[in-house]
Formats: sequence, structure tokens, C-alpha cells
Amino acid sequence: MTDSEQIRLFFEPSSVAVIGASPTITKVGYVVLHNLLANKERWAFNGDIYPVNPKHSRVLGVRCYPSLKSIMKKVEMIIIAIPAQAVLGVMEEAENVGVKAAIIISSGFSEVGNVKLEEDVKKIGLRSGIRIIGPNCLGIYDSYTGMDTLFLPEIKRLSSGREVIATPRPFPGSIVLISQSGAFGAAALDYMAGHGMGVRCFVSLGNRVDVDEHELLRYFAEDKKTGVILLYIEGIGKGRDFFEAAKEVTNLKPIVALKAGRSGAGARAVASHTAALSGIDQIYGTVFKQSGIVRSMNLEEFFDMGRALSLQPPARGNKVAVLTNGGGPGIVATDTCEESGLSVAKLSEDAINKFETLKKKGEFLPIMANSNPVDLTALATSDMYVKALEILLDDKDVDGVLVITLPQTPSILDDVIEKVSDVAGRREKPVVVCVMGGTEMAEEFRARFEKSGMPSYSMPERAARALYSLVEYGKRLRKSSKVDVKI
Amino acid sequence: MTDSEQIRLFFEPSSVAVIGASPTITKVGYVVLHNLLANKERWAFNGDIYPVNPKHSRVLGVRCYPSLKSIMKKVEMIIIAIPAQAVLGVMEEAENVGVKAAIIISSGFSEVGNVKLEEDVKKIGLRSGIRIIGPNCLGIYDSYTGMDTLFLPEIKRLSSGREVIATPRPFPGSIVLISQSGAFGAAALDYMAGHGMGVRCFVSLGNRVDVDEHELLRYFAEDKKTGVILLYIEGIGKGRDFFEAAKEVTNLKPIVALKAGRSGAGARAVASHTAALSGIDQIYGTVFKQSGIVRSMNLEEFFDMGRALSLQPPARGNKVAVLTNGGGPGIVATDTCEESGLSVAKLSEDAINKFETLKKKGEFLPIMANSNPVDLTALATSDMYVKALEILLDDKDVDGVLVITLPQTPSILDDVIEKVSDVAGRREKPVVVCVMGGTEMAEEFRARFEKSGMPSYSMPERAARALYSLVEYGKRLRKSSKVDVKI
Repeated sequence: MTDSEQIRLFFEPSSVAVIGASPTITKVGYVVLHNLLANKERWAFNGDIYPVNPKHSRVLGVRCYPSLKSIMKKVEMIIIAIPAQAVLGVMEEAENVGVKAAIIISSGFSEVGNVKLEEDVKKIGLRSGIRIIGPNCLGIYDSYTGMDTLFLPEIKRLSSGREVIATPRPFPGSIVLISQSGAFGAAALDYMAGHGMGVRCFVSLGNRVDVDEHELLRYFAEDKKTGVILLYIEGIGKGRDFFEAAKEVTNLKPIVALKAGRSGAGARAVASHTAALSGIDQIYGTVFKQSGIVRSMNLEEFFDMGRALSLQPPARGNKVAVLTNGGGPGIVATDTCEESGLSVAKLSEDAINKFETLKKKGEFLPIMANSNPVDLTALATSDMYVKALEILLDDKDVDGVLVITLPQTPSILDDVIEKVSDVAGRREKPVVVCVMGGTEMAEEFRARFEKSGMPSYSMPERAARALYSLVEYGKRLRKSSKVDVKI
Repeated sequence: MTDSEQIRLFFEPSSVAVIGASPTITKVGYVVLHNLLANKERWAFNGDIYPVNPKHSRVLGVRCYPSLKSIMKKVEMIIIAIPAQAVLGVMEEAENVGVKAAIIISSGFSEVGNVKLEEDVKKIGLRSGIRIIGPNCLGIYDSYTGMDTLFLPEIKRLSSGREVIATPRPFPGSIVLISQSGAFGAAALDYMAGHGMGVRCFVSLGNRVDVDEHELLRYFAEDKKTGVILLYIEGIGKGRDFFEAAKEVTNLKPIVALKAGRSGAGARAVASHTAALSGIDQIYGTVFKQSGIVRSMNLEEFFDMGRALSLQPPARGNKVAVLTNGGGPGIVATDTCEESGLSVAKLSEDAINKFETLKKKGEFLPIMANSNPVDLTALATSDMYVKALEILLDDKDVDGVLVITLPQTPSILDDVIEKVSDVAGRREKPVVVCVMGGTEMAEEFRARFEKSGMPSYSMPERAARALYSLVEYGKRLRKSSKVDVKI
């Protein structure tokens, strides 16, 4: 079995046992079993499901087994949700019955000082070949296969009596999120669900006794449904493996990384959080750069870049144009582009001529600015956006466009969304969108842009940084194609 | 009449004439008159209102005058919404009838090359003593006096047939926004309305032939309803005046500035947008620092800082604590605090002892981290938050606290909102909140925190930068009190 086939077992097991299955609604073993059964019933999960718990003969209407051994059928994967002290026994039993993979959700290992126990679990994994995710993790949420070990409550009751979804699952998409931190993962899924980001998979790695980032990177690089990989990192254990994997994977898929613990105090906090060695930040910077990983400097940008890279093609160069109906936001976007190393330069003579010709024909306003940023002014119409964007995308001196639409101005109508998306969709250069505003109109504009495949942001700077990620990844791809030519 | 009394006329005129009043719904003169009449009827506006337009005898049910002169009563302020070429004539008439202030909304002046016309308008202002805001501006929105010249359409019809509010007015509050850019202002009001930010006043200055930032700063410094002033700047005309005013004003009220046109390309765009001299960015940096202005580096931060400074007291020093139920976000917040010059240092021995004592009593979990960041872990309860926040706020080595509540974890209930707000409200140190997530539960948490007076942010880094603004402004106040002592 190749490494990749082994990793695949975690996401698509033909059979899975839930160790610690429980009829008690607040127990991890209830939530996990419930989710798997529901997913099997309604759409996705294909594997056989075996609850294991000596205290019950049936759980959630399904036959429950007293032990792994008693199942008497092949069990490929086990999900362990029992107290830490009992995990070792289960792992030994798993070894005897030929289990191939284990997600150990249980906490109570090295993170609270039980280093010996964790070492013993690791040893069983090594000698038996059972691959392990965890312990002390949330496990996996796979939006396509229905594998779902997130045990956080689905519903929470507020003091008003109102019930709200506590751990929403984002809709299926192409974004993979890999995180050591569990609570962050839950918040991240909530964020992505709320912002309409389609998620391929979420993996929480916990204490990482076995499966590590680099194996997941290689796995998702080959996965056809994966478009972009987001990596929340507190510290990398196997630096060389990570570097080699990342270098190869970014040939195929973009990776965005957020490294927490950059500051001295942050690094100390990492040590007490996941016991990871945070390391010198500069080294991470170099590793990211040399392996072609796009580095985000904050969490918002982390998700923003993920959306851009999942929806738009990489740029062929760093020359970008800004198109706007509001001068101020256009300038602000320009500042951030330039500060990120993008060039907001003069348009080609050809493009300027086109603008001037259409100005004379009355298709643009005489007061519009066709320097870069291109300011259509507050009187811009949807048709002006279409014509301007066409000119910009056809300009050989423009590698990508940042489009700002302030929906508050009188002459701009919401057909600008579909029109701009249509023009962008017929070219191979990336386009990102900024729609400023916080009420229903702006929200509708942003949501509809996203549905049309255009990453859209509420602030010009965020759109600029998203465009930067498309330029950075384009740089990475050009580098690899050069290398290929040399060989 | 003092400068300040003159400026007050713009916001609280005893009588106002709308030049270019119109019954046509798409005209500026309709929207402005309509808003003033509505505000007079329903709550706020106290002045007499005179529509002026020779074409109509009545507009919106109100007697309309053919000229300023024909009104035969005192007119303190005029709002001009007619083509540029006709403005000069009106200004001359205004001089004759003793008008004191004019908001010239009309565009078509220096921004499109009509420099001579603008100079002539300016001359009338100088010789007559009529103070002028504009031309080429949105004018004023005053949430308390009902002065409202924003002429953008209130309602927009989407292609689906649904009607949405196009230019929402934020609810009354203590934030003042001063902006040269008009379209940005409209988008900013929309943003603030959508994010529950209470606004005292919005002023769009346009071409600034007369009234300038520094006069408005002084005016709002004395205004009791103003808590914080946000300044969107593309370029300052009268640098010395601005510097002197800002230095004095920041003794009384915090000012947050965003300077657009930092980069070379951005500065060029400023020149073609508001014809302002963007200047060398470093000089702005120095002016801001020396005058005690808090500088924000992007638009989101601009508003985030405004919310923090309008809701929370300034900090007495730069030592902050981070309190969290998720390790990752706590580390990320710590990084940004430290990178902003805040110190996330060890807690005092006294505080650590308190934590340890309560740990032994079982009121905190044994696995919680009481280094700084303080990590209550994913099993945190509302009561743990209360006790931890009390210890932190009572620590002499802590000047402010960043509280992160991930609402997705099972044990945290929404009573944490009122409990945390209550503890914070009974201390004099600033507290800011981060609630990660994008769906209804996280949104409800954030909205309720804000209602309880706690600025709350969806990302740890944003909360960290907001806390930074409270530390920066605290630094400014300490500086001035030292100076006072010396004197």
C-alpha cells in the first residue's frame, strides 16, 4: 500500500468502527456515530459503520459490539473517543484484527504531560503499520465522502431560547484546511460557512504522533477536488520532509500558510499550546518562499487568499490595474498593491487610445481617469465597467485587475455583477472584486459576485492582498516551468 | 462671531435655503430638500427651510422662492445644488442678503479644470465672510441636528425587483468621520450602518476652497457628543494649521487618520483625484506621531480603531493580556500585539498565585495556561472568563485585555457576553473582544458585545490593532499631562 493509499483510508474507509459509541447526546461517541450514520443515510458516506461499546447492545438503532474483535469483519479504520488510559488497549486490539488507520480524538496525552502514554501509542502504530491521526484532535471533515469526526455540538441554545447552529459545515468546494489547533478549526469552519467558502476537507492533526502535514499535502495535491490548501501552522516537526513535499505540491496546487508564533511572546505561547517548536520566524519565511508557499500575515488574509486562489487563475506577472467608481478606495487599493510588490503602472498606449476613443464617442465620461487606477467616477454605469474591464484585460501590460464597485452611487445597478463576471470569465487573467459597505445591498453584491466565481471583499486592501496571492502563485508556476525547460 | 460659531452654522443653521430645490426625484435638489423636511417633521431639524427655484412656486408642498432675495427673511445657510456656471451668481446674491454659510454640492470646478470659476467663488467667500464647504462634495450628515445634504438615492431597486437601502444612515453615536472623498464617504456610512457603529457626524469636504480639516477638528473637539474623530486624508493643504489643531484636539479627543496615497502610484492617483498634494508619506507619519494622531494602516483598521476609541477608555501603558478559549487565535493575537509595540508579558506573581489558588479549588481547569496569553482551553465556561478577567484587570502589570471567545466550543454559553461586559465596565482599563466565526451565532455574539459597550472583532489581529489604538491614545494623554505638570 502506498503512502497515499494509506492516507486515503482516513477519508474513504470501506469500514469504520466508532470506539466509545454512545447513546448519550453530549458524548463525543454519540456525535461522531450520529454524523456518520446520517451521512450514510442521506448522501455521502459509503463505508460500513460499527459502533463499539461493551455497555450497549444497540446505539442509535444500530447493533453495537462489545469489542473490535467481536465484529468478526474487516475493519479498516477506527475512530477512538474514549478516555486516554483505555486507548492503548484498543490500539493493541486493533493491531490484532488488522486495522489500517486510527483517528484518536481522545485527549490526555503529551499535552497534559502524559508523554509515556503517547510514546506507547506511537510504538504500536510503528510496529503494526496502523496509521494514526491525533491524539487530541478534532479529526476530519470531508465534504465529499461524508467522513466527519467533528464532535462539537451542532446546535447551541442561546439564553433567549433561540437555537443556533454551533458548528456549521461549509458547503462542498475546493478549499482544504489543515490545522494543528482544534478550536481554531471549529471557528474557521464557522467563518468559511458564513462567507460562502466551499470546503473540500478539514483536518485537525492534534499531537501528530504519526500523520504529519507533509503527507496530507501530497495526498491533496493528487486529489482532483482540491483547488487550494490552507495551512495553519504553529510549528513544523519534520522540516525537511515538509519542505520537500511543499516544493513538489506547489507545482500542482497553491498552498497558503499562516505561521502563528512569529513574535517572542507568541512563540512561548506555541510551546505551551501544542508543544511545537515555533522556531525562528525568518526560517519559516525562507522555507515558504523557497517552496513556493504563499504566506499570509493574518487570519483574515489567510481566508481571503484561499478564496482568491480557489476561484481565479494565477497571474502571469506582477502588473495589475485598478478599476473603480470611487477615487479614495482606488487609491487605497493602489497603495496596498504597491506595498505588496505589485506594480500599478501606466497602461499601454494601446489601452489609453481605446479609452480616449470611447471617451470621444461618449461611452465614458470626459472626467474619467484612464491613468491607473482607472476611475470611472461616481457616475459609472455597468456598461462602462464592461468596456473598461475589457480594455484592461486585453492590455498586454496588465496581468490582473482589481475591480472596485461602490454600489451606493446612483448610476451603478446590480447587473454590473453578472456583466463584470462574464467579461472576467472569458479571459485568462485573474480579477478580484471589492464591494464596500455593510448593509444588505453591499452584502448581496458580494455574495452574487462570489457565486459568479469572483472573489469579493469588503475592503480595497483585502482585495489587493488577494490579488497579490494570485501574482505570487503565478510567480511560483513560472519558476517551475522554467526549471522544466532546463531539464 | 468666533470660528467655532461660524462652523456651527453648517450643522445647526436657524434657517437654510436649498438652491435648486426640485420636485424631480432624481435631482440633488429634491433629495436634499426632502431629507431636511422629513427631519424637521419627525425629530431633529429645527431651522426654517426655504426652497429656491424660479421654475416652481411649490416644491414638496412647501412654498418655493424664485430667488434668495425674494425670501425677505434671514437666511443663515444655503445649500447649492445647481450647475457650476450658475453658482457664482447665487453667491453674489447670498453676499447681498447676508448669508453666513454655504455648502456647495455642485461639481464642475477645479476637479475638471475650471480653476478660474473656483477662484471666483473663493473670492466672494473671502470678501463677504460667507464660510464655504465644497464645492464638489457630499456635504454633511449630522445625526443629532438632522442636517443632511447627502444626495445619494436612499433606495435602489435590484434586478430581482427587490428594493434595498442604498445610502443607509448609521444610528446616532459619537464617531465623527471627515473625508475629502465623497463616494468613499457614502460607502463608509454604509459600512458603519451595517456594523452598528454610532455616528455623530459625517462631513465630505470636496475641493476645500474654504473650510478645511483643522477647523472641523477644533469644532468637534468642543462638541460634547463627539467621542472620536476619523480622518480620511488624501492630502493636507494647510500643513501648519492642521498640525497645530491636531496637537490641541488630541488633548481632548482621539483622532484616527488614514492617509491614502502612501505609494508612488497612489500619490499620482491622489493628484488626479482631488488634486491634493499627497506629499512624502514619512512626513505624514511624523506629523501624526507628533500631534498625537493614531495612524491606521488600512480602512478596516480605521473603522476598527474608531469603534474601540468610541467605546473603551485609553490604556495607561502598553502591557496587555490576552484571554482565550482557543490556543491558536490567542497566539495570533499575541503576535499582532507584539508586532504593534504592545507587550504581552508575564503576569505579576500576584495574578499567577490567584490563578493557581483557583485552579486548586477547581474553578479553573488544571490544563489551563496562566502564562500570557491566558488559555482557558476549549472547555472554558462563562464563570472562568469572569474570574480570569477580574484577575487580569486587577493585575498592576496589565494595562488592557484582549478577550477571545470562540463560541463554537461546547461549554461556553452566551451569558459570557453580559458577564464579561459587566466585569470590564466596572474597571477603568480597556477591554476589546474577538469572536471568530461567520454564521448567526458568532454574529449575535459580536452584536451583543457591541451593545454592551465592548468593541468586538471577527479576527484576533483586528482586535489586537484596536487595542493598540487604545494604548497609543493613552500614550498621547500621558504625554500631555506630563507637559501640564511641567508648566
